[in-house]
Amino acid sequence: METIEKYGIFEYTVKGVPSSAPTEGAATFRNGETVRQVHAFLTGAGEYRIRFMPEEEGLWNYQISICGREQEGTLQCVPNTGENHGKVMADGDCFRYTDGETYIPFGTTCYAWIHQTEELQEQTIKSLSESPFNKIRMCVFPKSMPYNNNNPDCYPFLKKEDGAWDVNRPDLVFWEKLDKRIMQLGELGIEADLILFHPYDRWGFAELSQEDSLTYLEYCVARLAAYRNIWWSLANEYEMLFRKSAEDWDAYGEMLQEQDIYGHLISVHNIFAPYPKRKWMTHCSIQYQASDLDKVLRWRQEYQIPVVIDECGYEGDLPFNWGSLTAFEMVHRFWWVMLRGGFCTHGETFHREDEILWWAKGGRLYGESAPRIAFLKALLYSLPGKRHLAEMDGKNPNEADTKDTEEDSLRPFLNRLADAPEEARETFMAVVRPLRLEGETWYLEYFNRNRPVYADLHLAKNRKYRAEVIDIWNMTREMIGEDLSGDVRVSLPAKEGTAILVTELSKTGQDKYKKTKI
Amino acid sequence: METIEKYGIFEYTVKGVPSSAPTEGAATFRNGETVRQVHAFLTGAGEYRIRFMPEEEGLWNYQISICGREQEGTLQCVPNTGENHGKVMADGDCFRYTDGETYIPFGTTCYAWIHQTEELQEQTIKSLSESPFNKIRMCVFPKSMPYNNNNPDCYPFLKKEDGAWDVNRPDLVFWEKLDKRIMQLGELGIEADLILFHPYDRWGFAELSQEDSLTYLEYCVARLAAYRNIWWSLANEYEMLFRKSAEDWDAYGEMLQEQDIYGHLISVHNIFAPYPKRKWMTHCSIQYQASDLDKVLRWRQEYQIPVVIDECGYEGDLPFNWGSLTAFEMVHRFWWVMLRGGFCTHGETFHREDEILWWAKGGRLYGESAPRIAFLKALLYSLPGKRHLAEMDGKNPNEADTKDTEEDSLRPFLNRLADAPEEARETFMAVVRPLRLEGETWYLEYFNRNRPVYADLHLAKNRKYRAEVIDIWNMTREMIGEDLSGDVRVSLPAKEGTAILVTELSKTGQDKYKKTKI
Repeated sequence: METIEKYGIFEYTVKGVPSSAPTEGAATFRNGETVRQVHAFLTGAGEYRIRFMPEEEGLWNYQISICGREQEGTLQCVPNTGENHGKVMADGDCFRYTDGETYIPFGTTCYAWIHQTEELQEQTIKSLSESPFNKIRMCVFPKSMPYNNNNPDCYPFLKKEDGAWDVNRPDLVFWEKLDKRIMQLGELGIEADLILFHPYDRWGFAELSQEDSLTYLEYCVARLAAYRNIWWSLANEYEMLFRKSAEDWDAYGEMLQEQDIYGHLISVHNIFAPYPKRKWMTHCSIQYQASDLDKVLRWRQEYQIPVVIDECGYEGDLPFNWGSLTAFEMVHRFWWVMLRGGFCTHGETFHREDEILWWAKGGRLYGESAPRIAFLKALLYSLPGKRHLAEMDGKNPNEADTKDTEEDSLRPFLNRLADAPEEARETFMAVVRPLRLEGETWYLEYFNRNRPVYADLHLAKNRKYRAEVIDIWNMTREMIGEDLSGDVRVSLPAKEGTAILVTELSKTGQDKYKKTKI
Repeated sequence: METIEKYGIFEYTVKGVPSSAPTEGAATFRNGETVRQVHAFLTGAGEYRIRFMPEEEGLWNYQISICGREQEGTLQCVPNTGENHGKVMADGDCFRYTDGETYIPFGTTCYAWIHQTEELQEQTIKSLSESPFNKIRMCVFPKSMPYNNNNPDCYPFLKKEDGAWDVNRPDLVFWEKLDKRIMQLGELGIEADLILFHPYDRWGFAELSQEDSLTYLEYCVARLAAYRNIWWSLANEYEMLFRKSAEDWDAYGEMLQEQDIYGHLISVHNIFAPYPKRKWMTHCSIQYQASDLDKVLRWRQEYQIPVVIDECGYEGDLPFNWGSLTAFEMVHRFWWVMLRGGFCTHGETFHREDEILWWAKGGRLYGESAPRIAFLKALLYSLPGKRHLAEMDGKNPNEADTKDTEEDSLRPFLNRLADAPEEARETFMAVVRPLRLEGETWYLEYFNRNRPVYADLHLAKNRKYRAEVIDIWNMTREMIGEDLSGDVRVSLPAKEGTAILVTELSKTGQDKYKKTKI
């Protein structure tokens, strides 16, 4: 009897099957009251495989039936260990692993890395292993655009005699490669945010019929859903796939939701505006422009699921505005989005004569943002407990400092603001109110590209706090106040890229939150 | 017979008038077919003054009639000289002086500078004289908000016995000061963008009744309209004056348009969203947020009048996001807005214990943006001829560079984009297309906070061009290509704050546009 770790993979291969369909038959797994069914997928001539991820410990009996070939057996599922925390799930406006472990996405982007040479793919894996990234956006299909002029060695399908893609004949060389890369990512603790369709295409994958598209997706589910680190991204820039309608996209989302028994994350990425809210959508995967910065709050409100800004431009120096962010701007966007309650994704596009740019092909990272993203990641992971987005004490940021004057000179204005139409007041507050991420015993505020020379903290009078100023670029934490209580003013360095971390000291006077060296 | 320079001021005082109304009577000025009529305004007990700006040369006969006191006379209007180019008018999406001279607004903001000590006001004038600014946003009424806790020495009106403002009794000490300051600004070539109402008020000026407001405006017109450098700004943040309705604002605009015989510029400044288009509105005066960056293009399209971003945050270090821009960001916003076809306004808010911040009180400039704004101003004024906003050659910025490859890898995507719904395509293009300001023989492109390492220029094949790279922060111009023609790639420094100026060389091969040392 095979022993499988919870969230691990059980596989069973059946040969001599009289079929050549991409998916066939079914396997039923039973563990007490729990019943799970998956399809087999083609792995060779007359050869099919069952792939199953048990999510409950104990004995699972299985029955496999593929074109009349019947198999039975039992597997034992034992507790997960080490870095295996299960799959990532949405949890309110955040994510977590199945076993409850914290997961905060720090993604990167290598659209077509699996379509490059073996050597380059291995280099990418090495670079990822040395990076902070725990999610990667990657396409099934190859990519065509500037710096993407090479053809891959193999494609997901073989061709018909007329040259059209035959989605009923998966190219198994390709799928074995994809298996291998997803598994490697899993070993590195990296979620594979797999982009199923995209428009940057010169081979015809963007033009598949709806029937062919669904056949392809069924194969994806049968073959890939058992990987605990798989996410389904229906599209990159879905609006640019003009062959597909909203009904088509909804059909994919509904089909994945139904056929993927594990309920992996499903999203769809836009070019113009986020895809409307749908039941099958587990989180938002948004491309946004610099002018959309303040919309993160609105999207959180509107969608009530995690908001991932999966594309906000790339660190680089290309002659395209989406590909020439400074490293500081990239890091700033991570902080900005995180401190509006969203999550952000990295990419890198430095011009190279060999056209090997990380954003498309992987390889090596040349930029300066990754270490700073690692700093932010370590900081966020070090903060205890559940976090949420909060307004600053409900105090208006424009409120006058009344320390030096008896008169609150802004009070009449604020009174008038209180009488303003709600929509106007909301718009105003969305722009001016500072927000913070807070846990039970800490809060983190980021000052954006602004550079205040001081901050007024409004702390509980009967508790003690410590304040640290964080330099997001130089990756330093410096104490700026200890034993703070009540309303207190602290000095800030008056430079861009500053954040402040306020931590409550334990009531015994001892600091229960040790300063973490990150 | 008095001789007055065109766009200068003719004044005539009548004493012993049996009235104490703020405005009285009328004066009619005739020059051939041209007839102009203005009201007299109170300047003392029983004393009224007529103030008139002749806009045509020649002899003007006038008849003055104030409460039965009749006067007649003739004045001779002679050509304007020196820096006197008349008033500033809207000209399509730009501005010009009445005599045709170019005017490009480079404004600053000192809301309450005339409400400070005499010494501080003089310091402000001195600072302005050493600055690049040729427009100033300033309030008639004093200002109440953080750093604005002091009361002025005098107010525009005297009070009634019950303590309410008596708009029928202007405080002449105040208005003499205002006269003096507007004249001083005029001598410096600075337009006084006079804010007539604003909400940051603790004295009650924001609560004037509609009748009182109109009385006040009539006095403003009679007294101030003859200054060639006056602009009417109905409000700062008009939405925050909850006592006033859209009808009220329209009444002010219509009244000014009707009573101001010179047709000075009229605008109204918002906090949330620009005031809707109106006939009385000569240009947009917009407060915008960083998230509105791309809207300058939309507003140009929508309003078809000059778009002035009169508030986009201030260089400073306050703990408010509107008041803690870095100098670089302030300069960047000037370039960004200018290169989207709009105009931008400066302000400065560095925390000071003495509360003398330029943005409210004037005084001295401490920031680093003003010299860079001067550099941009000198550059723009040095470029010959009429300018307009243009797309880059109609070429798509995402178009593949086909130099190194036979295959245009992006072509299928672009073909698909061409088939996209118009709205979607427009949205896309608004974000990605580079724009340039261009004249007949030059164009200027700004790369935003992006930092491309090269640019592909698409120049006429049968002409010769010179390209210079401009560093907006270090204020340098460096030649990066001479005798350029056709499609050519030039190297760029791959840093934020870069612009490129391309100038056509004369056909004889001689450069008719000398490099200007600015």
